[in-house]
Amino acid sequence: MPVYYGGLEAGGTKMICAVGAGPNDLVAEARLPTTTPAETLAEVIAFFKAQQAAHGPLAGLGIGTFGPLDLDRASPTYGYITATTKPGWSQVDMAGPLGAALGAPVGFDTDVNAAALGEWRWGAAQGLDTFLYLTIGTGIGGGAVVNGKPLHGLLHPEMGHIRIPHDRQADPFAGVCAFHGDCLEGLASGPAIGARWSQPAEQLPPDHPAWALEAQYLGAGVASLICALSPQRVILGGGVMSQAHLFPLVRAEVRRLLNGYVQLPAILTGAIDGYIVPPGLGGRAGVLGAIALGELAAAG
Amino acid sequence: MPVYYGGLEAGGTKMICAVGAGPNDLVAEARLPTTTPAETLAEVIAFFKAQQAAHGPLAGLGIGTFGPLDLDRASPTYGYITATTKPGWSQVDMAGPLGAALGAPVGFDTDVNAAALGEWRWGAAQGLDTFLYLTIGTGIGGGAVVNGKPLHGLLHPEMGHIRIPHDRQADPFAGVCAFHGDCLEGLASGPAIGARWSQPAEQLPPDHPAWALEAQYLGAGVASLICALSPQRVILGGGVMSQAHLFPLVRAEVRRLLNGYVQLPAILTGAIDGYIVPPGLGGRAGVLGAIALGELAAAG
Repeated sequence: MPVYYGGLEAGGTKMICAVGAGPNDLVAEARLPTTTPAETLAEVIAFFKAQQAAHGPLAGLGIGTFGPLDLDRASPTYGYITATTKPGWSQVDMAGPLGAALGAPVGFDTDVNAAALGEWRWGAAQGLDTFLYLTIGTGIGGGAVVNGKPLHGLLHPEMGHIRIPHDRQADPFAGVCAFHGDCLEGLASGPAIGARWSQPAEQLPPDHPAWALEAQYLGAGVASLICALSPQRVILGGGVMSQAHLFPLVRAEVRRLLNGYVQLPAILTGAIDGYIVPPGLGGRAGVLGAIALGELAAAG
Repeated sequence: MPVYYGGLEAGGTKMICAVGAGPNDLVAEARLPTTTPAETLAEVIAFFKAQQAAHGPLAGLGIGTFGPLDLDRASPTYGYITATTKPGWSQVDMAGPLGAALGAPVGFDTDVNAAALGEWRWGAAQGLDTFLYLTIGTGIGGGAVVNGKPLHGLLHPEMGHIRIPHDRQADPFAGVCAFHGDCLEGLASGPAIGARWSQPAEQLPPDHPAWALEAQYLGAGVASLICALSPQRVILGGGVMSQAHLFPLVRAEVRRLLNGYVQLPAILTGAIDGYIVPPGLGGRAGVLGAIALGELAAAG
């Protein structure tokens, strides 16, 4: 009998649930709307229980979720979403009720660390020791594997909130981040593009000046994160990066900013095409990463 | 008979060599000028050989050095300083000749990763899993331990070269970094302060406006590195930070910039005094870290 894991990608608007053992071996998948915690978690549990009835017990359950989170295993609120800006979802225990209801060991991490893990297991980061996964969409979030383990540190990274140069004469837009104004997320997330140009990002044609500016900000963010973490690869996902024409622009900007200082063929030469890449799992990195988290939890 | 390790902190102007087993158990220490590679390495080897004659073989030798370095153990130039701006020192094999001459296993890392390791072993980072060591002096460099191991990644971090906001109206100074102009090092290293105010940094009084601006840049850099790495502690060393009045200014700026987003008592409260700290080993973190590297090399 095959061994199956559950994966939950918990987002602010939807919950993506899947059961299986990998990208080519999923037996069920569902998208449920994110409403109240009680209602949403009950529906998520019902989905996984139905799958257990059909396919047998889950060997592990992985949860990759929006945050911020308590990832400190010694903490009484381990497994909780903590002080989130999403109404009703602060101080919600995610790992506890799901693990108890499904009788499975639970792996719990940020949505972006889960996606990084998915890329490591089956996607564009296989075999790497230290790499970066950045998602650029309604927000900007970063996950990383460092020295072979997801990066947590004191809490978890908040890579979208690094500060980058912002020339207010060239771009007077103040930024959309409620906490920081013009941090990376404030300047370069999808909503920032939409607000700056008074037009949804996905409707801007590839030759619109929005994209050169976007590449400038993303290039500054990625170059700083390369200096901070020295990743072996940088994976850029999320809705904004589905504009594939952004990749060559961001690569060129990273190379211009580093200016030959980081002496690596991967960055100095055309090999940068294989250094700054889209996710191998595309938009499924998150939920597949949650399954990989479940796999890790099962392994203890 | 006690077990001794050798430690070499290799800098652009001097080589600090020590033999011993820890901060309270050093049997010899020397400072040798950095001249040509052949001359300098011969003197370093002569020092350690004399110590071996007096105290017996070294169980391991650690080298923490200025870079950039080749840290890839699979590379034919592992253990080399690579393309450095220091004349004569590009493509110099450091680990090979020293290990061969002294017959000891060699640990090899950046000067800042070695200092981080020293702080981990005996200083301000004992018991931590993920932390950051930043030195602010003639340059700005960062080392880190992440998930219990020194952070290398693709090459090694170059944290001094992250980009930070720079308001050219408030501070028209273009920055001193030969590669990037106004990166963190370009704006906030000792030479940057000296050039901006036409006066050596150490001669500026504590109430000089230089320090508020310095705290602004260091705060931006540290806040971004906190977002990137989520360190459990941030250690700030180097000559510029010997201006102890900078610590409260930098802490206040980090807190202002993060603006409550990273929900941690360590940052939100007065506990930040124990979060952003000077090195426990002071100026000796580098050479003691090299001894800790030697200890690790001896352990295999």
